[in-house]
Amino acid sequence: MPLTPEQEAEIEDLRAAPKPTLRAVSEGAEAHLYKVHPVLDHGFVRMVDYMGDDSAICQAARVSYGRGTKSVSNDEGLIRYLMRHWHSTPFEMCELKLHVKLPVFVARQWIRHRTANVNEYSARYSILDREFYIPRAEDLAAQSAQNNQGRGDVLNPEESARVLQWLREDAMRSYDHYEAMISDTSPEGEGQQGLARELARMNLPANIYTQWYWKVDLHNLFHFLRLRADAHAQYEIRVYADAICEMVKDWVPMAYRAFEDYRLGGVTLSTMAVECLRRMLVGEEVTQETSGMSAREWREFQGVLKKHD
Amino acid sequence: MPLTPEQEAEIEDLRAAPKPTLRAVSEGAEAHLYKVHPVLDHGFVRMVDYMGDDSAICQAARVSYGRGTKSVSNDEGLIRYLMRHWHSTPFEMCELKLHVKLPVFVARQWIRHRTANVNEYSARYSILDREFYIPRAEDLAAQSAQNNQGRGDVLNPEESARVLQWLREDAMRSYDHYEAMISDTSPEGEGQQGLARELARMNLPANIYTQWYWKVDLHNLFHFLRLRADAHAQYEIRVYADAICEMVKDWVPMAYRAFEDYRLGGVTLSTMAVECLRRMLVGEEVTQETSGMSAREWREFQGVLKKHD
Amino acid sequence: MPLTPEQEAEIEDLRAAPKPTLRAVSEGAEAHLYKVHPVLDHGFVRMVDYMGDDSAICQAARVSYGRGTKSVSNDEGLIRYLMRHWHSTPFEMCELKLHVKLPVFVARQWIRHRTANVNEYSARYSILDREFYIPRAEDLAAQSAQNNQGRGDVLNPEESARVLQWLREDAMRSYDHYEAMISDTSPEGEGQQGLARELARMNLPANIYTQWYWKVDLHNLFHFLRLRADAHAQYEIRVYADAICEMVKDWVPMAYRAFEDYRLGGVTLSTMAVECLRRMLVGEEVTQETSGMSAREWREFQGVLKKHD
Amino acid sequence: MPLTPEQEAEIEDLRAAPKPTLRAVSEGAEAHLYKVHPVLDHGFVRMVDYMGDDSAICQAARVSYGRGTKSVSNDEGLIRYLMRHWHSTPFEMCELKLHVKLPVFVARQWIRHRTANVNEYSARYSILDREFYIPRAEDLAAQSAQNNQGRGDVLNPEESARVLQWLREDAMRSYDHYEAMISDTSPEGEGQQGLARELARMNLPANIYTQWYWKVDLHNLFHFLRLRADAHAQYEIRVYADAICEMVKDWVPMAYRAFEDYRLGGVTLSTMAVECLRRMLVGEEVTQETSGMSAREWREFQGVLKKHD
Repeated sequence: MPLTPEQEAEIEDLRAAPKPTLRAVSEGAEAHLYKVHPVLDHGFVRMVDYMGDDSAICQAARVSYGRGTKSVSNDEGLIRYLMRHWHSTPFEMCELKLHVKLPVFVARQWIRHRTANVNEYSARYSILDREFYIPRAEDLAAQSAQNNQGRGDVLNPEESARVLQWLREDAMRSYDHYEAMISDTSPEGEGQQGLARELARMNLPANIYTQWYWKVDLHNLFHFLRLRADAHAQYEIRVYADAICEMVKDWVPMAYRAFEDYRLGGVTLSTMAVECLRRMLVGEEVTQETSGMSAREWREFQGVLKKHD
Repeated sequence: MPLTPEQEAEIEDLRAAPKPTLRAVSEGAEAHLYKVHPVLDHGFVRMVDYMGDDSAICQAARVSYGRGTKSVSNDEGLIRYLMRHWHSTPFEMCELKLHVKLPVFVARQWIRHRTANVNEYSARYSILDREFYIPRAEDLAAQSAQNNQGRGDVLNPEESARVLQWLREDAMRSYDHYEAMISDTSPEGEGQQGLARELARMNLPANIYTQWYWKVDLHNLFHFLRLRADAHAQYEIRVYADAICEMVKDWVPMAYRAFEDYRLGGVTLSTMAVECLRRMLVGEEVTQETSGMSAREWREFQGVLKKHD
Repeated sequence: MPLTPEQEAEIEDLRAAPKPTLRAVSEGAEAHLYKVHPVLDHGFVRMVDYMGDDSAICQAARVSYGRGTKSVSNDEGLIRYLMRHWHSTPFEMCELKLHVKLPVFVARQWIRHRTANVNEYSARYSILDREFYIPRAEDLAAQSAQNNQGRGDVLNPEESARVLQWLREDAMRSYDHYEAMISDTSPEGEGQQGLARELARMNLPANIYTQWYWKVDLHNLFHFLRLRADAHAQYEIRVYADAICEMVKDWVPMAYRAFEDYRLGGVTLSTMAVECLRRMLVGEEVTQETSGMSAREWREFQGVLKKHD
Repeated sequence: MPLTPEQEAEIEDLRAAPKPTLRAVSEGAEAHLYKVHPVLDHGFVRMVDYMGDDSAICQAARVSYGRGTKSVSNDEGLIRYLMRHWHSTPFEMCELKLHVKLPVFVARQWIRHRTANVNEYSARYSILDREFYIPRAEDLAAQSAQNNQGRGDVLNPEESARVLQWLREDAMRSYDHYEAMISDTSPEGEGQQGLARELARMNLPANIYTQWYWKVDLHNLFHFLRLRADAHAQYEIRVYADAICEMVKDWVPMAYRAFEDYRLGGVTLSTMAVECLRRMLVGEEVTQETSGMSAREWREFQGVLKKHD
């Protein structure tokens, strides 16, 4: 259970007290505010604040005095045009603030997206909780044979059981020692000084949970989601991206639809691939040999053309 | 008058329709929303949206589940601590969106602050209005003799009159030609094709007004204000910075007070200056010769010590 | 002529004195260093410094101890893989520093690319030269009827002559007054104070030339080039992008080829477009009506499929 | 020993083959290139590339055609002026690329400095080495009683021995299990699939070493060094900052001296502190009560005035 009753109560308090505002309000986002969306075994994503809505994108694109909206269909057309032609600045005019609880190894991937603001729970200052990500057996996959950085088949039950036992035991033992090191009591019950927290944390494995506030504009969020909600992303970060997608869909529904059509579901083709397509569309037979592509590129190209057949 | 009656009406509409929100609300900011704060002869600053308030800074610093506030005095203490010790990330958790109308030469200085989001009115797409910044006579100053990039005394009336006449006439003539070039009618009243707007704009001088939406987080806004609300900044950008200071003071009063105390009114002293101070405080007489500073640094140092005497 | 004999001599001096270095050296880049590549009537681009080469991209991608190169073909394969899969960080490990002279209205577009370092010639501090961009008659195009922000047909000779005369006369008159305003002599030959430069510059039109040092990493440079070397970019910035492309081609030839194949010549297709393609490739007749696309999107899609037929 | 003989040989090869270049060359930086500067027990910093030198800062500040140098003393004066007045863009014109080996918990602090380019060794792709940071006994300090995020006294020998044993044993056991999980052989010697590396890494504690290429401009590097070479920074990152300071001192000696004088050794005083100083300098007795400062601020202020007495 990720939240204590006190934390639940705090969230209820916040949701119980709407206040009037003159700012752009997104009904879809209001429904999400502060609520915990569980992710993995102990993690979550919560929307803490947002700025702007679909019409704020149009308002900025038009540099207008009022709401910027002409008509709903007109707005959607403009948003789709902006997305299709990579006009990114109007999307930067919306902003999202999230509270995320996530394993450290996921946090290390996430933080590579530098165009965002972050406040992480400080382990120099505070004591981390005894919470570790232990995968479900069905998520324990073997190293992929094809893809050097991906996963292959699910492990068989014995191997899987062995892995889970190590993960659990090592996490518990590391945390026991972490606690013992920062304690003012020695294992024999005598007083001790207690190791500095900034040092003791080094004993904790990368599946321990951390937390942060993460704030990002919509353009950079879409970039993050395109990479991390993708089938090639590591499962443990993808589930966070998926949870965020659900929020964004409700917050800025027009922008999200355009994002789905032109980015998430879109594909980028190389000069060679476009040339092949043109030949294929006039009836020419094209093979890898006559395509000018490498074997790997050809395979990827075939994947684009045949998907869902 | 910067606004048309239609624009005034649009703004009134926006201010007349508060909606409920669960987000952090700053009463001080709500009072500013959408209103026009005139700057220079035709310019303005308007607050279009904001995210967060003083307690959102504390909430992020504490990575808390609820509002993050413990007590008001506690919050102010935390904010002052964060400002004093250059912990900038909690301030990045607040965001401000402004609509600004400003002369192009001011826009060119402003845009050097890169950590912000901008949507500018497009002169490739739209036709610019006939509005130019013409300084008041009392703002027409001579080149400074001391400071290579500053201003000295106010021009005498004759010189000033000459300057103003040139500025006005050149602006009007350039705009006449701009209009004539993009028109579908020639000066003789015959049809013409009309030059592309993206080309015609090159004839317009740098005192023409442009507009943009500008969005920035509070940390970067403070950085902008420290440089641009400073006595060394060009007057024409300083008046915009001053207008923004008034808004920020009402939006996040605790953070603004800390900013005033530790940044705006604060000074940075070099190793040599600190060493001199220590000697002076124990009664030693220190001169430029014995200070280790250059003449210019010594003058600046004296300015710090003697100000307001 | 963009350079004075003194400037030419300074450049010759720099090119005459190679020094030994242990850093990665790109022969192709060395041939460009400091040389002036003229652009438009008075502008130029010069490469002032560079960091890294093709193998530095691989070295960073592999986090290797030595040069990082395994074999030339292996390096090219890796670079193409990184480009195809949007792994941008290795390209960020190369850096280019340019000295550019360009009209102010081009500089205003250029500066919107924020992820770069800029030092511009200061018109608060220094006096701008009497150099203005005056287009060639064949570059004077009418506003496009189809595309709201583009150009259509070239103006006819009479209209063109009218435009050129206005541009030339307004530029000269504005500059005459700029000089007169900052001068210590009045038009009547008497002494005057001389208006501050930071004010006088406001009278200068947007086709005056400015200069800057611009430094950018290769990933962000590619992003700039993709947008600005594109057919939809304004001609006056595209010629700068084209000149930079020639330098990059010589500096990092493998990376540039990958950029050409996957970005410059590549296309991004939406979910609907990919779906249509799949149907077309199995022989189905698809029309705009059955495509799910808007008229405009369908036209763009047809453009991709039929180009060069 | 951080390097294998093969790695040492690669470095020797790189250092043995100087090539001619026309770019700015810093003799001080050349002496460092590729060499390993050991930090902590298994870490290091190596300079992999640099762009620019002291005169490149002046060249950019002056937007000059040639080297930009007028005279050495003139250059140093300009650099000091730029530093003192927070003109940061000329310093951004120099760039440094480092190869760093560092414990994961240090990497997590380091990466918060977002304005830099990073390529980290991928633990999804590759297998991490069995190398862990184990502090020296004299670096094992207790949690500070005064400062919530700092260290106090060194632990006594018994407590210290206990901590070191836990750190060593937990690291070895976690790594044994990491190896066993990714292996294609089970503990009983039978075949197994081998857990995906991206999952197995979650068992490794934060004192394991990772590596990255890190590239940053000089302005942002100075910001990093000011925060991380500071007495309040955690010891384990400070030793990296110190090692980098030694390199920067040799690479751009003038800029480094200005940085030392105005940033590293400088102090920022608040409005209240400056006011107190003025009163004290005219002989007034000022106490915390009459200063307007909180107890903590007053203590910090006293520290500035009395240091080194």
